[in-house]
Amino acid sequence: MMLPHRHPISGASYSAVELSPGDREVVMLDQCVLPGEERYARFTRVGEVAEAIEKLVVRGAPAIGIAAAYGLVLAAASEGGSAEVFAGSMSAAAERLRCTRPTAVNLAWAIDRMGRIVREVARLAPVERALRLADEARAIHREDVQACRAMGKVGAARVPDGATVLTHCNAGALATGGYGTALGVVRAARDAGKRVRVVACETRPVLQGARLTAWELVRDGFEVTLITDSMVAQFMRRGGVDLVVVGADRIARSGDVANKIGTYGVACLAEAHGVPFYVAAPWSTVDLGCPDGDAIPIEHRGEGEVLSFRGVRVAPEGVRVDNPAFDVTPARLIKAIFTERGEASPPSEQTLREMSRP
Amino acid sequence: MMLPHRHPISGASYSAVELSPGDREVVMLDQCVLPGEERYARFTRVGEVAEAIEKLVVRGAPAIGIAAAYGLVLAAASEGGSAEVFAGSMSAAAERLRCTRPTAVNLAWAIDRMGRIVREVARLAPVERALRLADEARAIHREDVQACRAMGKVGAARVPDGATVLTHCNAGALATGGYGTALGVVRAARDAGKRVRVVACETRPVLQGARLTAWELVRDGFEVTLITDSMVAQFMRRGGVDLVVVGADRIARSGDVANKIGTYGVACLAEAHGVPFYVAAPWSTVDLGCPDGDAIPIEHRGEGEVLSFRGVRVAPEGVRVDNPAFDVTPARLIKAIFTERGEASPPSEQTLREMSRP
Repeated sequence: MMLPHRHPISGASYSAVELSPGDREVVMLDQCVLPGEERYARFTRVGEVAEAIEKLVVRGAPAIGIAAAYGLVLAAASEGGSAEVFAGSMSAAAERLRCTRPTAVNLAWAIDRMGRIVREVARLAPVERALRLADEARAIHREDVQACRAMGKVGAARVPDGATVLTHCNAGALATGGYGTALGVVRAARDAGKRVRVVACETRPVLQGARLTAWELVRDGFEVTLITDSMVAQFMRRGGVDLVVVGADRIARSGDVANKIGTYGVACLAEAHGVPFYVAAPWSTVDLGCPDGDAIPIEHRGEGEVLSFRGVRVAPEGVRVDNPAFDVTPARLIKAIFTERGEASPPSEQTLREMSRP
Repeated sequence: MMLPHRHPISGASYSAVELSPGDREVVMLDQCVLPGEERYARFTRVGEVAEAIEKLVVRGAPAIGIAAAYGLVLAAASEGGSAEVFAGSMSAAAERLRCTRPTAVNLAWAIDRMGRIVREVARLAPVERALRLADEARAIHREDVQACRAMGKVGAARVPDGATVLTHCNAGALATGGYGTALGVVRAARDAGKRVRVVACETRPVLQGARLTAWELVRDGFEVTLITDSMVAQFMRRGGVDLVVVGADRIARSGDVANKIGTYGVACLAEAHGVPFYVAAPWSTVDLGCPDGDAIPIEHRGEGEVLSFRGVRVAPEGVRVDNPAFDVTPARLIKAIFTERGEASPPSEQTLREMSRP
């Protein structure tokens, strides 16, 4: 019997982003064409990686941090110059990657972590510099998967046997190094022997729920029901949702959470229906330098995402569009934030500060 | 200067449904292909009209009532038999139309009203029967437009100058004989000299907001911003919505309102953000025989509406789908229901019963 190929770090037969064994290519499962096609895109230059992040070939806060770290490995591998030239090239590469998407703090976190290694290795031989950076990038990837598994166990304790979990957007293996944050909680619940079902919101405008969450859950044998975002309240009212778990793009020190547009509405509806609302995210998503949700930069994306779908125009000429890609859920609506360090419950400056201590 | 053609009953240059001048054709603006094409479909048989209602060529509670009435005119025109044969044919046509869509009570209301004329005219000559039914159907159409204009004035009194009105689905000229229910309120506010802007929810899965509400409002010169359903909470939180007005498919005597899926969620979010939530509907939508929302039949439509968009599959094989086309907003979340008889405020068995008295 042939075993399916498993990626060594993610542990799954698919992976959002990988560095090729020779460190020469960043390989991404192209999330723009899922679920219709399972196609891997390969990039050899950091600029291509930045573009891929902008175009959502890879997305999800932890995954774009890993992708950026791998992109910096490509930048290092192509720079044979002096320490000063290397530092300049790496700084330019870092800034190019940093400006791809503003909301997810994991991106800046990973770039800053790689930057510390860049300074350490600048005076080494070019081959050594690239190897050290590749090691660090893979460590970021590996630690993200470990964090997902750890927060999954933390969160799974809150999932009753037989529960139906509603989630918004994709906070799964495809949004992380592997295993997932919100979907990591779902996987850990099953790994702990619990029966668990998922209701996935399709998550307009980019349909990460329909295209990505449904894909990875079906692939992994979960029972998943797809609903439009407009059906959340009705499903909660009928008693069809036991808890909500979502991911996060940035968590302010107040406990306010930025996540995919629509999350805040789901949180309001959960509150109105007495459904507990949880967030799962690695500690790299916590931004203690950010006081509260109002200070989180919110990315606004192009009109086309709302006006058209895969080239089919759905709205008339002359209509205005506003397309905020994220919203902020205030801490008061969140029962707990699951991280690899345990849970912040309730999320607050106090609980997060206590968890931040080594 | 050439004046644009205006339909005599709707008063606009476009109309969801019309009976041709010779009573031989029912003409519908095909709402399946809007906004890309403005194409009129013509039907000569009642079965075609029933199919068109099922396929959403025409939709909107008042409009499908009118379409059914016109469909019965076609049935009468094609039946030259005796009174008994005529009665049988008309009864069969009525039942075919009645079962097309279960939630909107206006459909049954219009069919029952036509049924009373069928009994009156059964013994007349075939030509006379058809003429009398055409008169009644046009009266249903004309009275619906009058009701829209009247409820528009009632509702406009609640719209402050400069207001931004959020609406869900399409409760406009395209959903009625003309002028619209919820959008009738918007039109009446402008007709009264007020500045008014609209935020239209795209209304997945069928996108009536993006395709229809945006189309008719842009056409009539309104400023309209299109948002995905997932953005409602964020827009309310930012203070960008002054009030919500939606239509209705059936109003129970308790004041509970069935309307397009997603309406209940918008009502919950309006409550959470202190935004007044209104319903506009003709009295033909009020079903005093229906005690409350739990007794309203909710249509569930096919999986394809959620799984695909215009032939493009958006979700993987193996995912489950539930597709309720409507939800119920309890009376307690509704500040007032606007009708041509005035407003029910708050909506309740008491206020509705008082309005039901002649």
